[in-house]
Amino acid sequence: MTSISIIGIGKMGGAIAGIASASGADVQVVARDVAKAEQLAAGSGAAVAALGEPLTGEIVVLAVPFAALDEVLESYGDQLAGKVVVDITNPVDFSTFDGLVVPSDSSAAAVIAERVPAARVVKAFNTTFAAALATGSMGQAPTTVLVAGDDQAAKDAVIGFVRAGGLSAEDTGSLKRARELEGIGFLQMTLAVTEKIGWSGGLALSK
Amino acid sequence: MTSISIIGIGKMGGAIAGIASASGADVQVVARDVAKAEQLAAGSGAAVAALGEPLTGEIVVLAVPFAALDEVLESYGDQLAGKVVVDITNPVDFSTFDGLVVPSDSSAAAVIAERVPAARVVKAFNTTFAAALATGSMGQAPTTVLVAGDDQAAKDAVIGFVRAGGLSAEDTGSLKRARELEGIGFLQMTLAVTEKIGWSGGLALSK
Repeated sequence: MTSISIIGIGKMGGAIAGIASASGADVQVVARDVAKAEQLAAGSGAAVAALGEPLTGEIVVLAVPFAALDEVLESYGDQLAGKVVVDITNPVDFSTFDGLVVPSDSSAAAVIAERVPAARVVKAFNTTFAAALATGSMGQAPTTVLVAGDDQAAKDAVIGFVRAGGLSAEDTGSLKRARELEGIGFLQMTLAVTEKIGWSGGLALSK
Repeated sequence: MTSISIIGIGKMGGAIAGIASASGADVQVVARDVAKAEQLAAGSGAAVAALGEPLTGEIVVLAVPFAALDEVLESYGDQLAGKVVVDITNPVDFSTFDGLVVPSDSSAAAVIAERVPAARVVKAFNTTFAAALATGSMGQAPTTVLVAGDDQAAKDAVIGFVRAGGLSAEDTGSLKRARELEGIGFLQMTLAVTEKIGWSGGLALSK
């Protein structure tokens, strides 16, 4: 049975927890605010833990903003060795909203992989707004979760639970492709902020 | 009346010429192979010129691969001053298919803007395969041409002729966003080459 720990209970964490529960996985929700996490998990069968408590998932989704990753990696660095670690962030420079805070030839996912080299880092969920994950559609189009990573088994585990949870998912290549995925996530955010699209829309993969 | 010169008669040039003609614009098709250009333009009312002959369009679409831009910019550099110059390229490193040949903090559009500073450079058409332009749809989704540039009137001219030609178009921001658009174009190409999507698919903007 797949076991998934989701760190973070914002809109994205909540939507991913929903997919994980629907997939039939053993789900753990981890948050600083345990009372709020209990509320989110109520009725879903998910276990709840406070940030810093042991992770039970073989897949760990870091459902926190890029700026909060330092604290999470400090709490869990060693425990992440060998685990499938899913980076969902868009490392937007919110002071300018005109670029990313990671080096232009890198990505948030690559930064995490450097910080925790024993983790099997997978990029996913950063090109799909929370509403697209929760509803299964981006505007008129079905939602497809785009995935990238260097460890094929790790990617397959993520793609597997997303599909079992009822959404489409597609392997877009090596972890280097996280750079393009973060470009897509960033562009979507600028389009939503400037009201060219809604937060229920986005760039949907059409085959 | 809008006048549009399209340099290049590949699949992309042909599809853009079709949109330009449908928009009611005065269209000129420019190619090294004039006989082939005559064939492409037959019945469309478009004028044909050999590469190096004067450009009649106030909008000039560089519908050639990135590697062929040097020759085109050498032929037409001075004539492009003041014109709306549309860059459609995806500067993929075809030796590796694992990245772009432009600097990671730049874009093909930025490189062109540096080379021809008096041109009003607009990025467009690089996130839509030729089939998406010719048929108006990407798989099940309608085609939207994504546009970026620093000159609002230049962008509006491009968006205007695309919409008049029957497709949707959206302004995605300043010329800096060409970097993200080229990331999207590149990712789509890798997905098509690896048969994750067809050359009739892509990332379709869903509002």
